[in-house]
Amino acid sequence: MFNKILDSIVEETGGGIGAILMGYDGIAIEQVSRDVEGLDLSLVTVEFVSALQEIRKAVEILKLGNLEEVTIKTDKFQTIVRVLNQEYFIALTVDDQGNLGKGRYLLSREKNNLLAALG
Amino acid sequence: MFNKILDSIVEETGGGIGAILMGYDGIAIEQVSRDVEGLDLSLVTVEFVSALQEIRKAVEILKLGNLEEVTIKTDKFQTIVRVLNQEYFIALTVDDQGNLGKGRYLLSREKNNLLAALG
Repeated sequence: MFNKILDSIVEETGGGIGAILMGYDGIAIEQVSRDVEGLDLSLVTVEFVSALQEIRKAVEILKLGNLEEVTIKTDKFQTIVRVLNQEYFIALTVDDQGNLGKGRYLLSREKNNLLAALG
Repeated sequence: MFNKILDSIVEETGGGIGAILMGYDGIAIEQVSRDVEGLDLSLVTVEFVSALQEIRKAVEILKLGNLEEVTIKTDKFQTIVRVLNQEYFIALTVDDQGNLGKGRYLLSREKNNLLAALG
């Protein structure tokens, strides 16, 4: 179920490399990824989780509203992290030429399906 | 000099609230901001700096390329952090209806001016 949703997001996003559904505890529920040399997507996401936790904490302390999305862009990759609820988020990684806008749209589109599947 | 550049970025970006030029050590060089109730822009940026440091560290360790940009979106605000060099970054905050794409363009446009001014 999760696998199918993640797959469709990665496939439909131009330049899609992989997607991961993960808890804020750093434990992945599901992930799909294409082989890209030197890239371990789950490792990447785990490394970003503590940063994400810090951002969420800061947003709460400073009353900046509800955290919805964090994007990280390097000259090689782009990752969108979309918050699903208090416990889970989904991260999508695309290459540097990838269509981040399309990815953002697909994450929004599938958010409710993912939440429903999470129960 | 910095003031003028930051001002033009905030003015020209639809929904622009403020911009801050800061070192990775969390010390601001210059900032401009409009009064928004309950929002202390320098406080927000300082809180985000440690997250930014973690992201930069992760990007380095995992050899993901050079960190260029991090965006943080809540239901009230959007912040783009644009890396200038190893020492400095600029953060632009716009409201939830703000034109993030325009902001991104302006940060790119002014990057070289800011670097030149940093000397």
